[in-house]
Amino acid sequence: MKAEIITIGTELLLGNIVNTNSRYLAEKLAELGIDVYYHTTVGDNEVRIKEIVINSLNRSDILILTGGLGPTGDDITKEVVSEVFDAKLTLDDKVLTKIQNFFNQKGKSMSKNNIKQAYIPENSIVLDNDVGTAPGIYIEKNDKIAILLPGPPKELKVMFQNYVVPLLSKKSRYIIKSKVIKTFGIGESKLESIISNIINDKKNPTIATYAKKGQVEIRITAKAESESKTDCLIESAVKQLKPLIKDYVYSYNNETLEEVVFNLLKRNGLKIGFCESCTGGLISSRFTKLPGVSEVFERGIVTYSNKSKIEEVGVKDTTLKRYGAVSSYTALEMAKGLMDKGNIDIAVSVTGIAGPTGDTNKKPVGLVYIGFASKDSAFTKKINLTGDRIQIQNKTADIVFSEIRKYLLKLNDI
Amino acid sequence: MKAEIITIGTELLLGNIVNTNSRYLAEKLAELGIDVYYHTTVGDNEVRIKEIVINSLNRSDILILTGGLGPTGDDITKEVVSEVFDAKLTLDDKVLTKIQNFFNQKGKSMSKNNIKQAYIPENSIVLDNDVGTAPGIYIEKNDKIAILLPGPPKELKVMFQNYVVPLLSKKSRYIIKSKVIKTFGIGESKLESIISNIINDKKNPTIATYAKKGQVEIRITAKAESESKTDCLIESAVKQLKPLIKDYVYSYNNETLEEVVFNLLKRNGLKIGFCESCTGGLISSRFTKLPGVSEVFERGIVTYSNKSKIEEVGVKDTTLKRYGAVSSYTALEMAKGLMDKGNIDIAVSVTGIAGPTGDTNKKPVGLVYIGFASKDSAFTKKINLTGDRIQIQNKTADIVFSEIRKYLLKLNDI
Repeated sequence: MKAEIITIGTELLLGNIVNTNSRYLAEKLAELGIDVYYHTTVGDNEVRIKEIVINSLNRSDILILTGGLGPTGDDITKEVVSEVFDAKLTLDDKVLTKIQNFFNQKGKSMSKNNIKQAYIPENSIVLDNDVGTAPGIYIEKNDKIAILLPGPPKELKVMFQNYVVPLLSKKSRYIIKSKVIKTFGIGESKLESIISNIINDKKNPTIATYAKKGQVEIRITAKAESESKTDCLIESAVKQLKPLIKDYVYSYNNETLEEVVFNLLKRNGLKIGFCESCTGGLISSRFTKLPGVSEVFERGIVTYSNKSKIEEVGVKDTTLKRYGAVSSYTALEMAKGLMDKGNIDIAVSVTGIAGPTGDTNKKPVGLVYIGFASKDSAFTKKINLTGDRIQIQNKTADIVFSEIRKYLLKLNDI
Repeated sequence: MKAEIITIGTELLLGNIVNTNSRYLAEKLAELGIDVYYHTTVGDNEVRIKEIVINSLNRSDILILTGGLGPTGDDITKEVVSEVFDAKLTLDDKVLTKIQNFFNQKGKSMSKNNIKQAYIPENSIVLDNDVGTAPGIYIEKNDKIAILLPGPPKELKVMFQNYVVPLLSKKSRYIIKSKVIKTFGIGESKLESIISNIINDKKNPTIATYAKKGQVEIRITAKAESESKTDCLIESAVKQLKPLIKDYVYSYNNETLEEVVFNLLKRNGLKIGFCESCTGGLISSRFTKLPGVSEVFERGIVTYSNKSKIEEVGVKDTTLKRYGAVSSYTALEMAKGLMDKGNIDIAVSVTGIAGPTGDTNKKPVGLVYIGFASKDSAFTKKINLTGDRIQIQNKTADIVFSEIRKYLLKLNDI
């Protein structure tokens, strides 16, 4: 079964909103084992929608169309598809009652133009909209299927899950399953060259690398008749890859670096604290996005000014004067000072030049010192990063979490 | 001039990532006055890329293609487009040197497969990649143009802005210019109903509202032969809108709430500090993304544990026991305690229940107290938010910045 996704709406075409529907539908169709080869976006224009629908029906079995089912005059998806499928539109009393009830429940009166939404093409299945007014449509003719879904993501998702999945499950023989392995500290081309033999050898599962925000993911995708078979295919690929990539992998289960650190701290019953300068709270903020993090996170301090470095974590005035705020000594004193407050097992500090200004001859933008203190030891690490301010902050946070992971796993010194 | 956007990549097709490139390019092309009627996404597949390119060239003048310019074997966009344009690929020494330098600067050695990226189609213009290795390509033949851009959004955006905009500006008779007005504290449908008469009246400029992450933007878009004409059209629309929307607007210049607060603090020579619990450093982090913020931001403290609330900002043990960490009293003592440290003019605190757990009968998830202290006064504000953990953290940060803005403009009490 080959499907394509056609998203309709001038707001998508003009870039006013991001197309999250295509992504959602693509993911869901993959899970159902239905191949998707094309996504197309077109505006609320009769001629062009028709052209796309006819063209797509020639090359695919299933069209999933979203948008253009609203009550207004420029909503024409249903009209165009009905014409192509040669199906008359007639008023469906049941659907009309449902729409009226929707408004009644909200204590509002139905606008006249909503009646348009109750016209349904003959020989089609109505897909109930449990969270909005526009019903979806499933129409099949000569082994070609068109499924019309409303544009608002909330309505679309509920409808797809409740009514489209059951209909399409019957059509597909296969399921597709993916596993994502996360790596850090290696570039995409280098990682790929290490595993290129395996990538080229494999047809099922397929193996591909993706660079994502400074990290590289390996995605293994298997297709089979059952979940146990896809799992088996994936596991055998992991076994082959592991010896080659293990030094770079921080998660075989699609976790983030923060999640890995959180789980390691929890498992070891340890508490952590952060003292940040150039990252300005980003490390604490990323960590506290995780629910339940209070179990392992004690406090964070954003010592942005020199005064706060002295007052909050006891950095010496002489250290700041002699070596500067961005120095190994300051980073060390920040971490030690935080550690001295007690109640934590690991203190991590960061001081650096995020830019775009603030650099000197000897200290370029991107120079960052990470400090690390525990009951047993304290040390620092110097890194040099490239990129703009936001990139330097994000990369620093990534490196901090990666180094904490390595420390907790005793992989090497920070 | 008609353009289309073709995004290439199996990770897009399978829904592994959201297609933000299409949106970015659509917005930029609109600004250039170039019409876009289709977006297409296709995988890293030679036959299908070729089919799409040929089909698109038949109906449009300019193709913008993204992705598939990487160093690996499945990156074939350049190869396919060169074939369709009948242009030979040859090794470009200058480009190769640039790629080698990119790796040298990072202290890394270039992987062999990166050489592939230095092959350039004849009679094309190389678009420098200032933040990555894959060069872009501009190729024109028989009045048809193809522009190949790298897939990573950061690389694509820099390249488009620096090299594609100047090339395409020459091709268009019209320019389109937009102005974005940012509002906070009003829903989209309410805002739209307030200005619906003006929206419906206007054809040029067009006026539209967009809900974006809990805020609503008004976008005014004008099309004319010159920038002075578009500016004039936009300004007259702003004049009409202003009396109706002014209570909700925080920026007429597309600034973020943080930027508005930053500028107000700077103008008034004031310093601020944050003491965060449930937002975990997000407020400090969002604020310190702005370059130069050290001028107005002194320090932040993430008092996540009760112990840290007592030790860092002097919240009383009895307050925590009697009223709890999530209470007006705790918020007030957090703000006062931070203020007492001196060196700042405004201290803002946040304590709340971000969820998903931690709620009680009397204190639901989404309950947040904001505390506020200055030399003259101290007070708190109670808010009730809905959504998941991340949404509650983000909404809290938005409200905090909005309230600081109002305080600085003496619009009302926090």
